[in-house]
Order: sequence, then C-alpha cells, then structure tokens
Amino acid sequence: MDALKIVKVGGNIIDDPGALENFLGPFSQLQGPKILVHGGGKSATKLAQDMQVPVTMVAGRRVTDAATLDIITMVYAGKINKQIIAKLQGKKCNAIGFTGADGNTICSDKRPVKTIDYGFVGDIKYVNSKVLGLLLEAGITPVFCAITHDNNGQLLNTNADTIASALAVGLSEKYATELIYCFEKKGVLYSVDDEDSVIETINTETYETLKSQGVFADGMLPKLSNCFDALKAGVSKVIIGNSSVISNKNQKFTTLSL
Amino acid sequence: MDALKIVKVGGNIIDDPGALENFLGPFSQLQGPKILVHGGGKSATKLAQDMQVPVTMVAGRRVTDAATLDIITMVYAGKINKQIIAKLQGKKCNAIGFTGADGNTICSDKRPVKTIDYGFVGDIKYVNSKVLGLLLEAGITPVFCAITHDNNGQLLNTNADTIASALAVGLSEKYATELIYCFEKKGVLYSVDDEDSVIETINTETYETLKSQGVFADGMLPKLSNCFDALKAGVSKVIIGNSSVISNKNQKFTTLSL
Repeated sequence: MDALKIVKVGGNIIDDPGALENFLGPFSQLQGPKILVHGGGKSATKLAQDMQVPVTMVAGRRVTDAATLDIITMVYAGKINKQIIAKLQGKKCNAIGFTGADGNTICSDKRPVKTIDYGFVGDIKYVNSKVLGLLLEAGITPVFCAITHDNNGQLLNTNADTIASALAVGLSEKYATELIYCFEKKGVLYSVDDEDSVIETINTETYETLKSQGVFADGMLPKLSNCFDALKAGVSKVIIGNSSVISNKNQKFTTLSL
Repeated sequence: MDALKIVKVGGNIIDDPGALENFLGPFSQLQGPKILVHGGGKSATKLAQDMQVPVTMVAGRRVTDAATLDIITMVYAGKINKQIIAKLQGKKCNAIGFTGADGNTICSDKRPVKTIDYGFVGDIKYVNSKVLGLLLEAGITPVFCAITHDNNGQLLNTNADTIASALAVGLSEKYATELIYCFEKKGVLYSVDDEDSVIETINTETYETLKSQGVFADGMLPKLSNCFDALKAGVSKVIIGNSSVISNKNQKFTTLSL
C-alpha cells in the first residue's frame, strides 16, 4: 500500500492565486491516499478590518473572541476551503472539505486560561480516524482547514501545523504516514538570508547540535520540535520545503528522521 | 430499511438561535439515514452591508457576482454550516458539512444569460450518490448548504429547496426517500392570514383544483410544482410544515402525494 501523504500548505501560498494553482496542480496528481491541510493566510485579517472587528495578537498568536471565531470560520472553512475543493474537483481530484467538527474527526480542549486568555482556541485531544479511513479507501481526499471542535457544540481555532501532525500521528496506526510541510522557503536553512543553504537531512542528533549552535530561527524551532514529536509518535517521514517538493522536481528540500 | 429523510430547513429558523436549537434537537434524534439542507437566512445580506458589497435582487433572486459569491460561500458554507455541524456533534449526531463541490456530490450548469445575468448561479445537472451512500451507510449525516459547483473549478449559488429535491430524487434509486420542508408556517395554508388553515393532504388532482382557485400564494406555487416534480421522479413522500413535523408532535402539516 502507498504511504498516506499529509500535506500542509502555508498561508503565503494560499494568499497568492498563482502560487496556489502551481501547488494544487501537482498535489491533485499525487498518487496514493492523501490529505491536505491549509493555513488561513491574510484574508481573515482583511475581513476583520472590513467588519471593524479588532485583531488582537499575543506572542504572534491570534486571540479568538466570538466575533473573530465567526470570521475565521467564514474565511477558513468557507471561502478558502471551498475554493480549494472546487479547484481540486476541476482537476479531477475528488476532495471533501473538513473542519475537525465534520465527522468528529479532530476533537480539542479549549485552551485553559493561565496568564493569557486566547479565547476560542483549541489544543488537540484526539483524532478520530474511522471516517477518514473510509473516505481514503474510497479514493477521496480530505481537505482540512485550521478549525476543530470540543465535541460539545463549540468550534475552536487550531494551529494548522499541529492539525497536520496530529492527523499524521493519528493515522499512523493504519497507514505509513508521510508529513509534508510546504511553505515559501526551499527547506530549513543554515542561514535565513541564503535561500540555497538548505539543510537536506536532519536527524535527532544533528537537530540537537544545530539547535545548540543557534542555527534555527525562532519560528522554526517549535515547528521542528513538533516534527520530531510526530516522528517519535509513529510518523515515517517528515519533509519541509516549498511547493515543488510535491512535484518531485530536482530541487533541495529538508527531510527529517529520527 | 428505514426511509431516507431529506430535511430542508429554512432561513427563518437559521436566523433565530432558539428556533434552530428547537429544530436541531429533534432532528439529531431522527432514526434512520438522514440529510439536512439549510438555507442562508439574512446573515449574507448583513455581511454584504458590512463589506459594502451592493445586494442586487431581480424577481426575488439574488444576483451573484464574484464578491457576492465569496460572501455566500463564507456565510453558508463557513459560518452557518459549521455551526450546525458543531451543534449536531454536540448532540451526538455525526454530521459532515457539504457543498455540491465536496465529493462532487451536486454538479450544476452556470445559468445561461437570457434577459437577466444572474451571475454565479447554478441549475443542477446531476447528483452523485456514491459518496453520500457510503456515508449514510456508515451512519453519518450529510449537511448541505446552498452551493454547488460546475466540476470545472467554479462554485455556484444554488437554491436550497432545489438542492433538497434534487438529492431526494437522486437518492431515490437506492432508498425510499421522504422530502421534508420545514419553514415558519404549519404547512400549506388555505388562507395565508389563518395559521391554522392547513391543507393536510394535496394530491395531483386537488393541487390542480386549488391552483385554479388561486389558493396558493405566489411563493408557494413554484415550491409545490417542484415538489410534484420530485414525486413524479421517484420521491415517496413530501411533507411541508414547521419544525415540529420532525418531532412528530400532534400538530397539523401538509403531506403531498401523487
């Protein structure tokens, strides 16, 4: 059986119609079972401005009050998700859009208030692989936006990277799972200023060495930590790169392994 | 096997949180396979105002330009659909939200321009029952909003009543299907001013008689014509009433048959 590929595509690609098209073409042609997870891009912030709903960020994270949750649900689960679904169908990739509430696929706890109240933000509790398995076996591609639920009626804003890794871990009991993060860079870089300084392989040992050398940028560190957690929890392979990693073009990218 | 119930719930119920709750409770407890189709309510018009997108109505129908399609997709497929899904999950009804693009379940033609250009409005071409059958057999409840696609990348605004009847007809090959329209009145009325003047049964013959007597209000006529078309195309039964028809409370409603 082919490995199950779980592909996370970042907001910068979502925001750029040409880049999205360049991504969805090769994605639709990926052989074997696959799941897409997409970030939100800047449309939610734009809509919040139009609706005069203030955007509050704390430590780079969006505080999600009720009005903001509505906006996120409209933009992520509505506009972005459904445009991706229609485009994939146009490319003969039979896709169905999901939040974690759909099919009760991803259940979260509302983040407890410590020093900061993030509002309607969810930390993933479990992935329910039954419905997803049924659809994957029927050749259907689930497409997730960054929303889950508490299984008690409440939608929750949830980090898309975490959704991708939780799906990869949750489905690793049934499938060999590969987790692929597509973002604007070619991979994890030795030097943020040098686009071509891609670190092609990182394992647990070299990760610790590079970390102690301060090679990883602030935003990359939690992402990598999250990736190694996924590998330890059963994911076969993690790849970090730009859209071209999907089309297997002859270009550098980063592969993580234990 | 239980009959498949396809329930259309109107905008007035969607717009009223208490009425929606009163509807979703009994709906979640309906035994046997079921599908929910929901209208849009007034949120799309409200969002269009907030975003300063002009709303153009021709003969009671919304003209759907690109900006309006975005708004409809955000409100119908995002906010309303996902809130219903989360609420149904909270009531232990395992639901998945759909547009016609999801799973390529409902494919439409963009309405051709004659005297009026309705924009991105779809007239249903076919229903694809394969994925829906798979989910219904697994005990999952599909929940449709009023959006379809052209299977070539384009989403299309589509009348929710028509989606409900197309689903009922499309699935009637596999299931005995009952089509249930829930709206704010108790049923089809002899006199619009008398809430209790419910016509309890209408068949093809009495329909023609009542129509010639001018009993049906303008909005009801195309709805009834659509219902009789569905019956002729294989739907077993059509019921028109308010939310309480779902809970089998001892109250009048209208049943249509050939």
